[in-house]
Amino acid sequence: MDIREKFDRLGVDNAPGQESLQKDVDLPIRGPKLEGEPVDFSHGDVNAHEPTPGSFEVFAAGVREGAAQAYTPYRGRARILEDVARKLSAFAGAAIDPAENLILTPGTQGALFLAMGSSVMPGDKVAVVEPDYFANRKMVEFFGGEMIPIPMRYENETDRSGIDLAALEAAFAAGARLFLFSNPNNPTGCVYSRDEIVGIASMAKRYGAALIVDELYSRQIYPGVSYTHLCAQEEAPENMVTIIGPSKTESLSGYRLGAAFGSAEIIGRMEKLQAIMSLRCSGYNQAVFATWFCEPEGWMEARVAEHRRIRDDLLAVIAGIEGVSARPSDGGSYLFVNLPELTVSLHTFVRILRERAGVIVTPGTEFGPQFLHSFRINFSQDHDKAVAAMKRIFEVMEWYRA
Amino acid sequence: MDIREKFDRLGVDNAPGQESLQKDVDLPIRGPKLEGEPVDFSHGDVNAHEPTPGSFEVFAAGVREGAAQAYTPYRGRARILEDVARKLSAFAGAAIDPAENLILTPGTQGALFLAMGSSVMPGDKVAVVEPDYFANRKMVEFFGGEMIPIPMRYENETDRSGIDLAALEAAFAAGARLFLFSNPNNPTGCVYSRDEIVGIASMAKRYGAALIVDELYSRQIYPGVSYTHLCAQEEAPENMVTIIGPSKTESLSGYRLGAAFGSAEIIGRMEKLQAIMSLRCSGYNQAVFATWFCEPEGWMEARVAEHRRIRDDLLAVIAGIEGVSARPSDGGSYLFVNLPELTVSLHTFVRILRERAGVIVTPGTEFGPQFLHSFRINFSQDHDKAVAAMKRIFEVMEWYRA
Repeated sequence: MDIREKFDRLGVDNAPGQESLQKDVDLPIRGPKLEGEPVDFSHGDVNAHEPTPGSFEVFAAGVREGAAQAYTPYRGRARILEDVARKLSAFAGAAIDPAENLILTPGTQGALFLAMGSSVMPGDKVAVVEPDYFANRKMVEFFGGEMIPIPMRYENETDRSGIDLAALEAAFAAGARLFLFSNPNNPTGCVYSRDEIVGIASMAKRYGAALIVDELYSRQIYPGVSYTHLCAQEEAPENMVTIIGPSKTESLSGYRLGAAFGSAEIIGRMEKLQAIMSLRCSGYNQAVFATWFCEPEGWMEARVAEHRRIRDDLLAVIAGIEGVSARPSDGGSYLFVNLPELTVSLHTFVRILRERAGVIVTPGTEFGPQFLHSFRINFSQDHDKAVAAMKRIFEVMEWYRA
Repeated sequence: MDIREKFDRLGVDNAPGQESLQKDVDLPIRGPKLEGEPVDFSHGDVNAHEPTPGSFEVFAAGVREGAAQAYTPYRGRARILEDVARKLSAFAGAAIDPAENLILTPGTQGALFLAMGSSVMPGDKVAVVEPDYFANRKMVEFFGGEMIPIPMRYENETDRSGIDLAALEAAFAAGARLFLFSNPNNPTGCVYSRDEIVGIASMAKRYGAALIVDELYSRQIYPGVSYTHLCAQEEAPENMVTIIGPSKTESLSGYRLGAAFGSAEIIGRMEKLQAIMSLRCSGYNQAVFATWFCEPEGWMEARVAEHRRIRDDLLAVIAGIEGVSARPSDGGSYLFVNLPELTVSLHTFVRILRERAGVIVTPGTEFGPQFLHSFRINFSQDHDKAVAAMKRIFEVMEWYRA
């Protein structure tokens, strides 16, 4: 394989945020342009749900402080590492030594990339859930790993993700030495049950496998759902890293802040990789971590409640439509919507939606090649615009129902 | 090779900025602690040479703008790409289509990593100058390439770098398909002559090799020195990328901003890699590119003049000391200082300097394993503190002269 072939397998044309670069030609249009405010469901709207109060002010103070904040060791500034370690230890129930077990990264994507680059050698078998975050599979490809897909039958489940633990055990038995998954799951929003988490942890330990657990959305869990941090379980294996950051619920994505905590050995490798990747999480931006887990009283509860209301009202739109379904998300801001058979391909439908309805959604194939009848939305949007956009989606869909 | 062995080759203990994490034990101390203000020569001091005027204000405006600045396509926001392409085209004399030939990255380190990751497959031969930026060799290692060192006999040259072009041709003839170098050179500050640049360009073209040219310090060229942008030469090969950013002369390092421009094919691969590495250069931070190449009248000239004065006064300190030498830098803020034989190893000497003199320098071995009698300083410091620190370095050195 040469470098061109390698990168041909890493498409970004349909990736979230890239849609504005697409050229729409020869779309089989069957109806009028629908009026309404455009909505980009490929990511959250930080105008509708603003960044954590005080985040800009602590950034500004970091700039004023100057050199000490501009240049930090690769893992991050010592006093910020100490603060974040204390807060994440309390949140996740894990013991985090700020000097050994934590690294600050350019976004949670940076944390994932560093964790994968520090764990995968060419030819390594890596178990990956389907559906799961689209970059997971691309990272396995990039680092030359061999992916073993683990099915997750999320659709008719409640109180669990529906991950196929027997398939995971078979993957470990077949030599997979790394398992990577997001919880809450991206794109479905389902949360793993305690039994599932303990099952994954003890199986990884038994087979000597490493775990990368993406908990990006774990602060946004809806009432009645029980969330289990794998890192806090006594069954947790030594070789594991948990990934988290304030880009989603906290709307701090514009600052590109992420964190990874876990095994000193893996974090040590991640530091070495960060040294050649980006040197550090942007120095001034690191100051913004001060606001994380220190939001004003009631702010986080209100934010979760707002998102639950949007979720429920979008699910109500879906409920009225023949052949369309979505499992209510247990946490996070995603819905993974299943469509009936259409007369156009999923990718064509997604482009028509953008052109006719002013709505951007992410095709299911970004989360696994088999998801040809699904799309993902991030519903961290203005409530009314999102509901109206959801209705337009299905108005357009009816033009193409098979 | 397993992942532990791979990362054992990527040490960061002596890398610039990491020194505060070192534990100094059993140093063979031979004199008193020297009084004086501590100076960290491992990187520039953005308190002594402040960020470009207006940089914080455009950042703040980006935050106020909200979603449109927080989330951008992976390459960067369209209007910022257009502005940066126009400015870099004028600066470097190359035609840069903002939609095809440019990507904004998390620092210039990010640009280098993306360029290398988009060019090197395991087993590929890569030609790298010695001495040159320490991360270059580590990136070749990380991506599984095989390094072919190209000597640069910079010491007794003027008006040229002293690169061994015959060795470079031999490397291309032996199968190297990529050559990577910094100009001005890091750590020596020497600038490649026009003949050297044209020689490299035409040789790369003849052998079908790709080039990555790191021009990070190319805006800080001292009077009387002629600088040649390889990308603007008619001999330039199709497969090349130029790397640059505002972290050095402009003191914007705390924002982590970088840019790469060149071949549409390589930039396209870099976009795909950035999608899984960090998604984008931090959204709000991208706004700061507006100040780049738009500094107030006379600001850049004054900044270059200040640095030239510091360089000259440090060279004057060196000139008085038996067995110590440094080639005057043609551009940038580095001096690569050669030491006489000492009774302690270079790494021990560097640690003693930190402990006794309050001075941090970077050992020559970070730039090539053979540089056992050299250290690098970044002299973008307060003038008086830097001169005093330089004197302390040699006061300590005398204790260990062989």
